[in-house]
Amino acid sequence: MATLTSYSDVSGSAPRYSTKKADSSFGIVYVNIGLFLIVLGVGMFIPAIVDASNHNDDWQVFAFCSSFITFLGALLFLSNKAKFTSLSIKQGFLITVSTWLAIPFFGALPFIFADLHLSVTDAFFEAMSGVTTTGSTVITGLDGLPPGILLWRSLLQWLGGVGIIAMGVAIMPILKVGGMQLFKIEAFDTSENFIPRSTSLAISLTVLYIGLTLICGVILWLCGMSPFDAACHAFTTISTGGFSTSDSSVAYFDNALIEYVISFFMIIGSLPFIIYLKMLVGRSLKPLNDSQIKGFVIVLAFFISLVTIWLCIANNLDFFQSLRYTTFNIISVITGTGFASIDYTIWGSFSSVLFFFIMFIGGCSGSTSCGIKIFRFQVMLLAIKTSIKRWMWPNGIHIAKYNGQPVTNNIIGSVFSFVFLFVLSLSVLTLLLTLTGLDFTTAISGAGTALANVGPGIGHIVGPAGNFQTLPDVAKWILSFGMLLGRLEIFSVLVLLSPAFWKQ
Amino acid sequence: MATLTSYSDVSGSAPRYSTKKADSSFGIVYVNIGLFLIVLGVGMFIPAIVDASNHNDDWQVFAFCSSFITFLGALLFLSNKAKFTSLSIKQGFLITVSTWLAIPFFGALPFIFADLHLSVTDAFFEAMSGVTTTGSTVITGLDGLPPGILLWRSLLQWLGGVGIIAMGVAIMPILKVGGMQLFKIEAFDTSENFIPRSTSLAISLTVLYIGLTLICGVILWLCGMSPFDAACHAFTTISTGGFSTSDSSVAYFDNALIEYVISFFMIIGSLPFIIYLKMLVGRSLKPLNDSQIKGFVIVLAFFISLVTIWLCIANNLDFFQSLRYTTFNIISVITGTGFASIDYTIWGSFSSVLFFFIMFIGGCSGSTSCGIKIFRFQVMLLAIKTSIKRWMWPNGIHIAKYNGQPVTNNIIGSVFSFVFLFVLSLSVLTLLLTLTGLDFTTAISGAGTALANVGPGIGHIVGPAGNFQTLPDVAKWILSFGMLLGRLEIFSVLVLLSPAFWKQ
Repeated sequence: MATLTSYSDVSGSAPRYSTKKADSSFGIVYVNIGLFLIVLGVGMFIPAIVDASNHNDDWQVFAFCSSFITFLGALLFLSNKAKFTSLSIKQGFLITVSTWLAIPFFGALPFIFADLHLSVTDAFFEAMSGVTTTGSTVITGLDGLPPGILLWRSLLQWLGGVGIIAMGVAIMPILKVGGMQLFKIEAFDTSENFIPRSTSLAISLTVLYIGLTLICGVILWLCGMSPFDAACHAFTTISTGGFSTSDSSVAYFDNALIEYVISFFMIIGSLPFIIYLKMLVGRSLKPLNDSQIKGFVIVLAFFISLVTIWLCIANNLDFFQSLRYTTFNIISVITGTGFASIDYTIWGSFSSVLFFFIMFIGGCSGSTSCGIKIFRFQVMLLAIKTSIKRWMWPNGIHIAKYNGQPVTNNIIGSVFSFVFLFVLSLSVLTLLLTLTGLDFTTAISGAGTALANVGPGIGHIVGPAGNFQTLPDVAKWILSFGMLLGRLEIFSVLVLLSPAFWKQ
Repeated sequence: MATLTSYSDVSGSAPRYSTKKADSSFGIVYVNIGLFLIVLGVGMFIPAIVDASNHNDDWQVFAFCSSFITFLGALLFLSNKAKFTSLSIKQGFLITVSTWLAIPFFGALPFIFADLHLSVTDAFFEAMSGVTTTGSTVITGLDGLPPGILLWRSLLQWLGGVGIIAMGVAIMPILKVGGMQLFKIEAFDTSENFIPRSTSLAISLTVLYIGLTLICGVILWLCGMSPFDAACHAFTTISTGGFSTSDSSVAYFDNALIEYVISFFMIIGSLPFIIYLKMLVGRSLKPLNDSQIKGFVIVLAFFISLVTIWLCIANNLDFFQSLRYTTFNIISVITGTGFASIDYTIWGSFSSVLFFFIMFIGGCSGSTSCGIKIFRFQVMLLAIKTSIKRWMWPNGIHIAKYNGQPVTNNIIGSVFSFVFLFVLSLSVLTLLLTLTGLDFTTAISGAGTALANVGPGIGHIVGPAGNFQTLPDVAKWILSFGMLLGRLEIFSVLVLLSPAFWKQ
């Protein structure tokens, strides 16, 4: 197993804890889980306050769970704390997966113990759907729920969003998962002082994330949402999560302005957040120079135009109405948010199937968006183009470049392997879902929407007008696993299942 | 554009035609189309004889079309004949695509002019489905059709089968399409005398193919089929085509022995034919040493066991009955033959979806089978395995080997590009089909069954108990294009659509 450095704990100041702890594989993993649990626990105190001020008894559940989780997190954190400076690849994978298992596990507690009384399966599904920013829900009657639960669902997505940005910027590129080594930040090239550097970067990103959420929330409030709805939707928009406060999702507000604002912030949530930092310090003022962003914008524009024109011609809709529907729903599905402003599957087979396929596209790397992601399509097309060139002019020198960087064969291999594993996972999950009795359309679009962390699939059960409530329990566990798999770029989860990983 | 050789027409004997002709891009293409049309025309004379001896007036149509096509072929052949020795890559692509367009075009004539009177669309679809060994049909009431038409359908598949073996062995590896350079035969390494060598190889393969068809036919006849049915099914079994003489396909015979015999010969048709030649001359007596064959047998055994056990447990079927059903239908779908001995979609969602996914697997390279093909899955898994090794032990030397040959990055790139283009083609064809009004299941499984040259899809329209007749005309043209795309490994067709191909 490669380690990023051999300089483990070599800081000049005398370490307060034995170096043994810092060297062990699990110390930093526990510290990390502890840290995330503290954040989760503190976050859970907000719905407690909101429910208490609304005289809803759920506040006790939130307050108790909050204290318990914070305490547990602090215990884990303090008992393993040491001066960590480097991170091995093994630790990277362990941190990634254990965090994304611990958060939904503990995040599900309020769903079980509050007045809602979800079953363990439903509660875990809802929490996993939240943390992975998927947005599939098993809860009906959202409009009548107490504010605490609604806020907690939104907060789960918001926390999941900031978590994945941090992972995507700091850890994933080092793990070289699915070609993400393309996005390794120069400053991180040497792993000495990796931990302090990544911590400071994570803090900057978090501040930025909070700022963007605030702006989104205020604008939604100015557009006519109640402060509470504005807050909840800001949380789930910027995290491209898609939980809403109404069963009819954003269609409930029936407000074009709100839809365009949400559309804009869904895009903001799907761009690489590091770009915003660069823009803030003035190092990049032309975001469209970035290949990922450029590709993403072109893809969005292409599909919005295509469906708008098709709606005008085939369904005789007014141009501006078509544009409003398609802008919102195409952006919602491609970014993997999953809000719906209309049941787009009623437009017929073409739009259903188009929405099925585009949900796999996803946003940019280093954002809250999931799916296969724009850069992988770009790398694959680049690889095909280069191999055609090589085949036509075998004596020429053909080097594929992406965003100014040479794309090595290793990167191309990683990207294609990722897509292969994605399609394989989709097939296996679909087959497993049919074993629980689901029909083809529900199974394949359910598996797809879980893997791509979108939210709605197609068909009357899991479509934008449906609900995951009626699915069998086993199907919900399969889908929860699919969400985890998709959120952590598949490979991170699969590698933990291989025996070779555990041998040193 | 790379050429395989610069020794064009350098034979010692004085060429009878000017070297200019031999150098031109199109001479050898015309000669090749001419040759194939002669074979087609001569083949068409057989149904004429059969119909005449059965006092069916269709014999005149067959006899006239046969003479016309043979004449046209001879004209093309003789007017462009020269002593060709080498083949450029451009010519290779042109030959491949033009042949697979010319044959269905002329092969469709009897369907239009015989008593059956199919529309041009239906006739072309049926002929394309025949020549590409797909086996989807638009004809209902097969059981009552005159023998000439039934025989012609079978012959089209048989000719398509031998054609693709020759292409797969001689031309495709040189065109380096989708990683097929892995199967380049050593003797072909230098392209001098490429044409004479490949001609002699093609003749050996054809003799072998005729022999295997004869053996298959005789055994089917001994098992109780009428000589006519035995002949037709032998033609469509060895070519993994799947046209039958009855609307209920092989279920019509309701004979376990016949099903096992056909199963065996469908496998024979899906193995690399070059292996049989090697076995005949005693150079290889252990076919299972070949990675492709080994992988293919393991895949078949896995899926047959899986579905047999599932049928016994979930559907309470008797073990031997389950084994009979699954052996035949799994082999039929994986090999891309498309015979059905039962409507396996009535077993429920799991089997429908399983049959949907396995149809993409396909057989071995250099056989009559289509689909993604076993070796591509093996190369992809090998690539993933090697990149995991590289990631775990970055300082080691990790060379991927397949069948004793090193798998270069170029081969891996070609294979992954093929699969990417396959999935992309599947998505685009599915979307186009939904525009004609088809539902999701019909569209995606119709596109899949066309691309993988299987025959039946899933759902009640294109499923094993359905028929392609009721589809809109536009859908039939889209599916015909899909069959061509799949049969010629996608890239061969797409490259002809690129402007760069036509420059020089």
